[in-house]
Amino acid sequence: MHPEWLDVPCAPLDETAEGAARKRQSQLTKPPGSLGQLESIAIELARLQGSPRPGAEKVHIAVFAGDHGVAAEGISLFPQSVTAAMVRNFAAGGTAISVLARELKASLEIINLGTVDDPGSAPGVLDLQLAAGTANFTEEPAMTREQLFRAMNAGRHSAERAHLEKTQLFIGGEMGIGNTTSAAAIAAALLGRSAADLVGPGTGLDPKGVSHKAEVIERAFRLHAPHLKDPLEVLRRLGGFEIAGLAGAFIACAQTGLPVVVDGFIATAAAVTAEQLRPGTVDWLLFSHASAEPGHAAICEALGATPLLDLGMRLGEGSGAAAAVPLIRLACALHNEMATFEEAGLQ
Amino acid sequence: MHPEWLDVPCAPLDETAEGAARKRQSQLTKPPGSLGQLESIAIELARLQGSPRPGAEKVHIAVFAGDHGVAAEGISLFPQSVTAAMVRNFAAGGTAISVLARELKASLEIINLGTVDDPGSAPGVLDLQLAAGTANFTEEPAMTREQLFRAMNAGRHSAERAHLEKTQLFIGGEMGIGNTTSAAAIAAALLGRSAADLVGPGTGLDPKGVSHKAEVIERAFRLHAPHLKDPLEVLRRLGGFEIAGLAGAFIACAQTGLPVVVDGFIATAAAVTAEQLRPGTVDWLLFSHASAEPGHAAICEALGATPLLDLGMRLGEGSGAAAAVPLIRLACALHNEMATFEEAGLQ
Repeated sequence: MHPEWLDVPCAPLDETAEGAARKRQSQLTKPPGSLGQLESIAIELARLQGSPRPGAEKVHIAVFAGDHGVAAEGISLFPQSVTAAMVRNFAAGGTAISVLARELKASLEIINLGTVDDPGSAPGVLDLQLAAGTANFTEEPAMTREQLFRAMNAGRHSAERAHLEKTQLFIGGEMGIGNTTSAAAIAAALLGRSAADLVGPGTGLDPKGVSHKAEVIERAFRLHAPHLKDPLEVLRRLGGFEIAGLAGAFIACAQTGLPVVVDGFIATAAAVTAEQLRPGTVDWLLFSHASAEPGHAAICEALGATPLLDLGMRLGEGSGAAAAVPLIRLACALHNEMATFEEAGLQ
Repeated sequence: MHPEWLDVPCAPLDETAEGAARKRQSQLTKPPGSLGQLESIAIELARLQGSPRPGAEKVHIAVFAGDHGVAAEGISLFPQSVTAAMVRNFAAGGTAISVLARELKASLEIINLGTVDDPGSAPGVLDLQLAAGTANFTEEPAMTREQLFRAMNAGRHSAERAHLEKTQLFIGGEMGIGNTTSAAAIAAALLGRSAADLVGPGTGLDPKGVSHKAEVIERAFRLHAPHLKDPLEVLRRLGGFEIAGLAGAFIACAQTGLPVVVDGFIATAAAVTAEQLRPGTVDWLLFSHASAEPGHAAICEALGATPLLDLGMRLGEGSGAAAAVPLIRLACALHNEMATFEEAGLQ
């Protein structure tokens, strides 16, 4: 049994617009290919937006927050109270993604899916509180079926709101103490890798802490082993509310034809999940940056993704995706506004 | 004999502002180091601008144009008439750097130091026309001493204008058919490398064309061999007007305390020259992107430079440096506007 909306196919790609954009690039006053990825981004966006003149002015950022029961296993340096405190900090405009959203003139919504502490009433926060965090997945599934579906739906609804607002790029961010553990577990299960391949320091664990994190995940794999062939069960048993929200959002973006800029480690794990749940989703995803979290490269490789930036970032919140937006905007401006050889009298 | 202004020392670096910026980064609501190079850029700019709250809103872009006598050796796919045509295209707003300057709300000045074709009167172009291009450096020095000093002065004056306008970041771009050959020759001579180590396809040579380019440079090295210990003579004999303009600008920026964002292959060759003429200049240079021109990596390594972006760009004009500006601005905004742990009630 799975939600029927997952069966809706992804929107078609517009190869006519892509061809027209490719032709235009070859006519602009520069040696062919000399703008590198600023050319390929514009062509890719043309294919996704179905327009030979793509745009990236209107950006919607949705940040999903949730706590993780697996934090009880001592896999994070920070206490769970930080998740709710950061929800308040998002609302107050003090987080990295708050600053980036303002700079980019992007709309920002915070969706709290379930924190251990109550963040209280915070303006601009959609407070769904499915539970006070997920269950500890070393002992039981992280979520009930209903919690999973509601979390995915929260992402889907965010993508649909963005679509109705005529958003040109969707960014999904996340906050949740312990979520690199959950993301590594999901990605390892879905890609058939060992936990040790994908774990990393997260917010700053030492090598001993990283080994412990891998052991915690391997323990969970033993508990859930009979159920890990089904990506929906992987997400329910090992996931977090915010990762389920991201996966739901990415799938709905692909279904409605809204390009996504994918952030780092957690978001890329959600992207793997989304692609397995709704094949074709990955065509709608632009990968923004190579995370400093070491497992990210392996997940990108499995998705055939080449991130645009490599700035040593490992914050999450959607911050790496937001950092890529200005480059995507410049790529569109160059594509749309440069003179052709003919216009410049250069034949 | 060399211009006296080259003896003026570089402006001092402000380690107090750097320390204050570093401390502030450690207090912002994120795991330490998790914004990667967006943290280090803000700290570096604080040191250069002498302010714990750096900024990058006001950007000045100067594009230097000039033709190269060495084009007679068949080292470029494009005819020299393109240089003057592109000067007109800069003025008309159709080039990549024109579009980028508009998007960044940066001021843009075009300084034509000497093209083979007369570009005619073009608004916004400072037309110095030192000669109809340099001489062919396989036969004689590219420039006279007077031409060299005037070209360097043009760069210096551009930097001084930018400084007077309270510019926060200076970008030097260039346009000149044949200038990857000149830049490779200068860099090889100054770094004691062979021409073959530093040449590349430029605007699109095939491997045979690249070999020919290296042979042309080695021929010039044999002609000028007795004079290549002196960086000023290297620049005069092998340079281009626009490369001399860039080197003069970079030195003057370092002397007046104006941080520079360095573009790709040609600009980095000018940076090596500037550093040898006025040691300490490199402290004022931020390196924007890894050029697709293969010799760029070797020049960066010699300068201890780690470029911010790697987008496969190889256009010049200052386009790669301009592409880095939004990231530098985001780095400043994050640094200046994020909440501290104390402000967010997270201790």
